Amino acid sequence: MRHVLSALVMNQPGVLAHISGMLASRAFNIESLAVGATETPELSRMTFVVKGDDRVLDQVRKQLEKIITVVKVIDFSNQNFVERDLMLIKVSTDGGQRSAIHELVDIFRARIVDVGPLHVMIEISGQERKIEAFIDIMRPYGIIELVRTGRIALLRSAVSSEDVETEQPRSLEPPPEAMV
Amino acid sequence: MRHVLSALVMNQPGVLAHISGMLASRAFNIESLAVGATETPELSRMTFVVKGDDRVLDQVRKQLEKIITVVKVIDFSNQNFVERDLMLIKVSTDGGQRSAIHELVDIFRARIVDVGPLHVMIEISGQERKIEAFIDIMRPYGIIELVRTGRIALLRSAVSSEDVETEQPRSLEPPPEAMV
Repeated sequence: MRHVLSALVMNQPGVLAHISGMLASRAFNIESLAVGATETPELSRMTFVVKGDDRVLDQVRKQLEKIITVVKVIDFSNQNFVERDLMLIKVSTDGGQRSAIHELVDIFRARIVDVGPLHVMIEISGQERKIEAFIDIMRPYGIIELVRTGRIALLRSAVSSEDVETEQPRSLEPPPEAMV
Repeated sequence: MRHVLSALVMNQPGVLAHISGMLASRAFNIESLAVGATETPELSRMTFVVKGDDRVLDQVRKQLEKIITVVKVIDFSNQNFVERDLMLIKVSTDGGQRSAIHELVDIFRARIVDVGPLHVMIEISGQERKIEAFIDIMRPYGIIELVRTGRIALLRSAVSSEDVETEQPRSLEPPPEAMV
C-alpha cells in the first residue's frame, strides 16, 4: 500500500541521511519527498510517499520516532487529508500550437510563468491525478522537461496534525475543491 | 552562498540515502529538498537548496555525478531560472476574521482548499519571498500548521537543463511573472 508520511524534524545536518538510510536499508523506495521550512525556524517538515507492507511501515514509523532529531512521524493513510503537488513544465511551441496550450492552461487553472519564441513554461499545482492528466495532455506538444515537488499533505481538521494522530479524523464540511 | 542544485537520478532505493549522506558528511545543511517524478518513469528529479562554500560545493557536485545512479547534477546559481515553492497552511478563523483572510487569499492569488467552522486551509505557490510574506501576514490570525514543498526550479530556455549547463543562459523575453 502507498503511504503518505509526514515527519517533523529538527534542522540539523544528517537528519535526512539518517531517515533515508533507514528506509533504504528496509528496501522502501521513496516515491516522492518534500522537505521544507515550517512556522518554527528550528523545525522542518518532511512529507514522503512510500510503498510497502503496512505492518513493516508501522515499525519503521516507530523506529523513525526514536531518532533524536525526529520530533514526530504521522502516517496519513486512512485519514482525511488534503494533498498537493507542484510542477514546473516546459513545453515546446515550435509547432505553432501556443494558443491551444494557453487554452489548456486556463482549463487546468495552471499559470504561464515564462515565455520564449520556442517554448512556454507552466506552473501547475493540485492533486497527483490532475498533474498527471496535465502531463498527458501536454505530451503531444513536446515536453522539453519538467520538475515536480512531490506531495505535501495536511489533515482536514482545525487542530495541528501532531495533536490528532490517535483520533479518528472528522470531515467538518464538504471541501470546496472539486477542481479539474 | 545559497545554491539551488538539480539532480536527475535513477528511481532506486538508496539513491537519496547516498546523496544526503555525502552532503551530511561535508556538513552541508539541506535547507529544502523536493524529489518528484519526471517525464521518464525510471528517473526522478531532486531539487535541493544548500548553503556552503562555492568551491567545496563544486567538488561535491562532481562527486555526486560519480554515483552510478545519478545521471546529472546542475547548479542553478548564476543561471537564469524560474523557481517555485508550494505551501499548504491552516489558519484559525476562531476570531471571526474569515472575510479578512479571504481577501488576502485573493490578493496573493492563493486558493482555499478546505473550510471548517474554526479554520481554513489555503494553498499558495510562488517564489520563496511571496510564500514568506504570506506566512507573515497570516501570523496574527493564528497559524495552526503549515507544510512546504521546498523549491523546484527550471532554466529559462527552450532546451532541457541537461543540455545547457555549460552555456551562458539567455533571457529570451521578459517573463510574465511580476506577481505578488
